[in-house]
Amino acid sequence: MPDTRKPNPARRNERSRQAILAAARELISEMGYARVSIEAIAARAGVGKQTIYRWWPSQGAVIFDSFLDLSRDAEGQGVALPDTGDIEADLKLVMRATVAEFADPRFEAPIRALNAEIINDPELAAQYREKLAGPVDDAKKTRLRSAQQAGQLAADADLDLVLEVLYAPLYQRWLHRSGPLTAEYADALVEVTLKAFRP
Amino acid sequence: MPDTRKPNPARRNERSRQAILAAARELISEMGYARVSIEAIAARAGVGKQTIYRWWPSQGAVIFDSFLDLSRDAEGQGVALPDTGDIEADLKLVMRATVAEFADPRFEAPIRALNAEIINDPELAAQYREKLAGPVDDAKKTRLRSAQQAGQLAADADLDLVLEVLYAPLYQRWLHRSGPLTAEYADALVEVTLKAFRP
Repeated sequence: MPDTRKPNPARRNERSRQAILAAARELISEMGYARVSIEAIAARAGVGKQTIYRWWPSQGAVIFDSFLDLSRDAEGQGVALPDTGDIEADLKLVMRATVAEFADPRFEAPIRALNAEIINDPELAAQYREKLAGPVDDAKKTRLRSAQQAGQLAADADLDLVLEVLYAPLYQRWLHRSGPLTAEYADALVEVTLKAFRP
Repeated sequence: MPDTRKPNPARRNERSRQAILAAARELISEMGYARVSIEAIAARAGVGKQTIYRWWPSQGAVIFDSFLDLSRDAEGQGVALPDTGDIEADLKLVMRATVAEFADPRFEAPIRALNAEIINDPELAAQYREKLAGPVDDAKKTRLRSAQQAGQLAADADLDLVLEVLYAPLYQRWLHRSGPLTAEYADALVEVTLKAFRP
């Protein structure tokens, strides 16, 4: 039986880390990326500024980690797409989850604020691609390559273009609020993409 | 032979109108949508504020007209897509022109500023859809319906989805600066879309 009276430093550190990342996301949603400061994040998270600087080299690094944190699973691993051998079923699962994420205010609001910033800031756009979009796209491409090997996608398909056709319509519809974001829409995007790139 | 010494009020009005719309676009590019005022537009265009209020009911109306103006042809008509009977050739022409527009700073900068605004402003997003995107989408759908009747597109294709698959990848790539915007890319989007929605 663990001694619950003794503080556990590892657990306490992880709690502080989560509080800091959650505070960063909340503040970005509330006031926009450009106006968030380390001081405000520390105050909201109930930690000292030095705690943040001990773990992250800069404000940009905390903010990016707060977004990355949303796309990690409970074990703290990066995303990996399911691979049951059925590309249509696997992509529908992923796209339905993605559509649900875009409908979740906890996720939606900070990502919307970040998008408004990166449109006018090429430097931030490059960081976004390198640190956030890039690793996620790599995970998706691994799954698409497996589908190419299984003969479910054209062997010469441009995987960047496949990802754009699959995700950009959802991204634009969400950004412009131009149509419903439903499970049926997620399924339709998967079906259209597989038809466009089938062997 | 026209008497060039006499001022022509219609021509002078049209010159003022064009100067006002150009000034609105320039100022939006330079300082962002939110900070443009009627006063600044009038000063830049070299006209009085009352001239603007005589022709437009509000600041929002001038700014929207300044964008609409970009998508009208020399005769002041709204856009209509070419219809030679060959949907692939017609769409490639249009998409190549669209890609070139997104590479043109005169067009690119104000549209980028407008996009950053509409992401965080649902009211402006609705106006954008109604006044700018909507009429242009209608013109595109007219061309797609003609392709459906010619058996070049599936009769049951969802035309909103067709337009998203055709344009959203370009939009996202431009917005995130995530890849080259070339004529080859325009062609690839047309080919992929026609394959995805062929009968």
